[in-house]
Amino acid sequence: MNQYYQTLVQKLEEIAHLNGIMSTLGWDQEVMMPAGASEARAKQLATLAGVIHDRMTDPALGNCLNELKENFCDDWDEVERCNIREARRNFELETKVPKRLVQELAELSSHGHSIWVLARLENKFSDFAPVLKRFLELKKEWAKCVSPELLPYDANIDLFEHGTTTAMITPIFEHLKAQLIPLIHTIQNHAYQPDTSFLQGKFAQYKQEALARKISQDIGFNFEQGRIDISVHPFCGGSHPTDVRITTRYKDNDFVESLYSIIHETGHALYEQGRPHEIGNLPASESLTMGIHESQSLFWERLIAQSKPFCLHYFELFRTTFPENLQSANPDLFYRAINICKPNFIRVEADEVTYPLHVILRYEIEKGLFEGSMQVDDLPQIWNELMQKYLGIKPPNDTLGILQDSHWSSGAFGYFPSYTLGAMYACQFYKKLLSEQQNTEQNIAKGNFAPIKAWLNEKIHRQGRLHNPQELVQRITGETLNPNYFIEYLKSKYGKIYGVALS
Amino acid sequence: MNQYYQTLVQKLEEIAHLNGIMSTLGWDQEVMMPAGASEARAKQLATLAGVIHDRMTDPALGNCLNELKENFCDDWDEVERCNIREARRNFELETKVPKRLVQELAELSSHGHSIWVLARLENKFSDFAPVLKRFLELKKEWAKCVSPELLPYDANIDLFEHGTTTAMITPIFEHLKAQLIPLIHTIQNHAYQPDTSFLQGKFAQYKQEALARKISQDIGFNFEQGRIDISVHPFCGGSHPTDVRITTRYKDNDFVESLYSIIHETGHALYEQGRPHEIGNLPASESLTMGIHESQSLFWERLIAQSKPFCLHYFELFRTTFPENLQSANPDLFYRAINICKPNFIRVEADEVTYPLHVILRYEIEKGLFEGSMQVDDLPQIWNELMQKYLGIKPPNDTLGILQDSHWSSGAFGYFPSYTLGAMYACQFYKKLLSEQQNTEQNIAKGNFAPIKAWLNEKIHRQGRLHNPQELVQRITGETLNPNYFIEYLKSKYGKIYGVALS
Repeated sequence: MNQYYQTLVQKLEEIAHLNGIMSTLGWDQEVMMPAGASEARAKQLATLAGVIHDRMTDPALGNCLNELKENFCDDWDEVERCNIREARRNFELETKVPKRLVQELAELSSHGHSIWVLARLENKFSDFAPVLKRFLELKKEWAKCVSPELLPYDANIDLFEHGTTTAMITPIFEHLKAQLIPLIHTIQNHAYQPDTSFLQGKFAQYKQEALARKISQDIGFNFEQGRIDISVHPFCGGSHPTDVRITTRYKDNDFVESLYSIIHETGHALYEQGRPHEIGNLPASESLTMGIHESQSLFWERLIAQSKPFCLHYFELFRTTFPENLQSANPDLFYRAINICKPNFIRVEADEVTYPLHVILRYEIEKGLFEGSMQVDDLPQIWNELMQKYLGIKPPNDTLGILQDSHWSSGAFGYFPSYTLGAMYACQFYKKLLSEQQNTEQNIAKGNFAPIKAWLNEKIHRQGRLHNPQELVQRITGETLNPNYFIEYLKSKYGKIYGVALS
Repeated sequence: MNQYYQTLVQKLEEIAHLNGIMSTLGWDQEVMMPAGASEARAKQLATLAGVIHDRMTDPALGNCLNELKENFCDDWDEVERCNIREARRNFELETKVPKRLVQELAELSSHGHSIWVLARLENKFSDFAPVLKRFLELKKEWAKCVSPELLPYDANIDLFEHGTTTAMITPIFEHLKAQLIPLIHTIQNHAYQPDTSFLQGKFAQYKQEALARKISQDIGFNFEQGRIDISVHPFCGGSHPTDVRITTRYKDNDFVESLYSIIHETGHALYEQGRPHEIGNLPASESLTMGIHESQSLFWERLIAQSKPFCLHYFELFRTTFPENLQSANPDLFYRAINICKPNFIRVEADEVTYPLHVILRYEIEKGLFEGSMQVDDLPQIWNELMQKYLGIKPPNDTLGILQDSHWSSGAFGYFPSYTLGAMYACQFYKKLLSEQQNTEQNIAKGNFAPIKAWLNEKIHRQGRLHNPQELVQRITGETLNPNYFIEYLKSKYGKIYGVALS
């Protein structure tokens, strides 16, 4: 094998090992670390980040990549090509940005987060506005450095959803908006609303934990190569496909939230555990994008676990676990209750019908800011007007409005679209699965999730980064991203739940 | 300040941060990591070890140290002098050994451990003998590289107990032997033996955990900057004085073992939490040696927690926690039961009277091997003869004899003496404490441990590495290490427990 490729592999694997360590420290910090250790940990993280940065910008790595470019070899296989391509992209992302800009972004990010926490607490957008303005300037400059050929906002989106642009997203989001706004209006104005009263009550934490572990394992989470713990915000972390760690939180008055949060994180975990790591700790084996990752978590949370067959299968377990609460309910009532559609100020609490409008609103604001058609100081008003227009509700304050998300406080513009791209990918994948495994709903009703997991493993997880998201969707489903699968799924499902014709 | 010193500080602090990360990963591996992640973790650890080695042998660090040597400055304070001295020692330890030897030692260590695990399981010393022989050769060569001025065994001891040699240890151990062997003989042949029957039974783990946490906190463990978990072998780890993590294991038929193991580890933890880290993450703030560390754990485990006032204070809590088991006991019976002296094949299960003979036996074997007066193949026989001579018992097999400890499987020669040096340091410190705080026993009986902890903080923990162990003992107690405090303590305590004159 090419000596430069061998050197590249060695360097990339070492970077992957160091990133795995970084990730373990991140998990530890959220789940295990004593509160008093935060200052020491910050220094440890900064030192390790410096080591990783040095490795990622190592001139010897750049030299390898140049040699491999000049001596391009036709008989490289797709894994090798992918490793080289991804390594070059990462190297360029790290080296094209001047150190001054990297530092200012890092400082503003840590600084900005604290300011956001306070501004949100005190409902004072004006305190956060200067951070947002500066981030916009820096992220525009950053975009010019890393991808001068792209629009600045597209360069930011590209970081989270490689190969995806506003030119592709905008018409899809316009279509979604045109369909979902009247749909939500119809649902809201309908006389029937699902009864959720039996989901109230007290639910002992140890019972919730046992339930979460059982269902996560039923779906396919491998506890030999992973673990479940508690943290303030649920997440999926870990250091390697053999070391995948998910978390949740438990509320004693709501077992549905933590259960579905564990199922969501299990979806992410199955992706990580299913990665083709036997081809090395290399880019080709990594998970693809935020959107594809989210398609996996939503696939299990929404399409599987919020389905009627799933409720049919597990309701008896839910009832025997919480007999006092659920004795008067039945699988159909449970299914309807967990699928209630109701506009909410808060994105993370939104149901699957209203969620996309939260995302579209943020997307339009980010796009407006980058294009210059919106100004930071006007955002609270713009936010509230769009909430009224899209969801028919107006936040009583900015804490429940424009200040609710942490993303902008670290300059993560372009991240939000991934959530709804993921929801649409998930539906398109599910539709394809149904056509290939026509007994899928029966399998779910029997608790037989193995064929579903095997399909996702083969079609998505084991593909690593060989293709970009658009290519992957095309390869799996035979067509590009098509929002109509998502729209049809929502219309069909919610039409039945609410007993209305949604078309 | 001197620019070379500033550079030195920066480099040393970065090394400390990376070592802190290494230590967190070590803790994670024992306590949290999924079993299936061991291969990935091994690669992560190897990569990080490489990064740390590069930093520790960085020629720019060597250059700094040279400049600081040549431009020695009279007005450096003792912290600065200590940092330079320790940095030079560490740099030399890392750079004086040829890479080939470092690698062979690392390989033999990992390899040797697996061979030892199997040999111990199968009671086959002959399988382990070649590892031991090779380690002896390599460790002699290593000794010549790092400390050509020392005897090879002394160079190995120096790694764990800096500044301490066989010339110092041998007469002390001879004295201990001469005193302890007849003492144990007298105790063993005495008609009275403490009743331990009430320590048998079932002890719910959650009760043991609550007890362990309460007593650890009473003694002074700071949970804001530390935590307690479960692992196969109890240890004290963590990444920084603000992040100290101790572990224990729980047996449902023995609450004393886990409780005293937590007290032991709390002793280590108080040392770590008490380090003067405000002077930087630098050598001067680090814990001193294995022996001094062990003096702190044994101080709390043996001298405080196995004392009569401690049993008086806590017995009622023990009885209310385990009423079924302890209803017929009383503080005096409990004190006697936990202090039973009885020769045991296994070092880690030995009581404080017989423990030193386990250590002396190993010390004599290590010394004999390094001097050439003993041969590896004869060790099982030598071991058994010495056990018979010192403790009056003969192991029925090598698993319960020469194969019991893991230390030699990683080439850690010279470590064992630290355990008994620690026991002697602890007694000498305790004697001094009694003379300075004459109400210490009353304080213990009242559960008032703060003055004791404050004394240890000031005299030992906050001294970091400013002095070597011998200097420290001299400074605190006004004399060099004197084994008679330990001997007198044992004679007085066990004379009373067994009702015999031991002199």
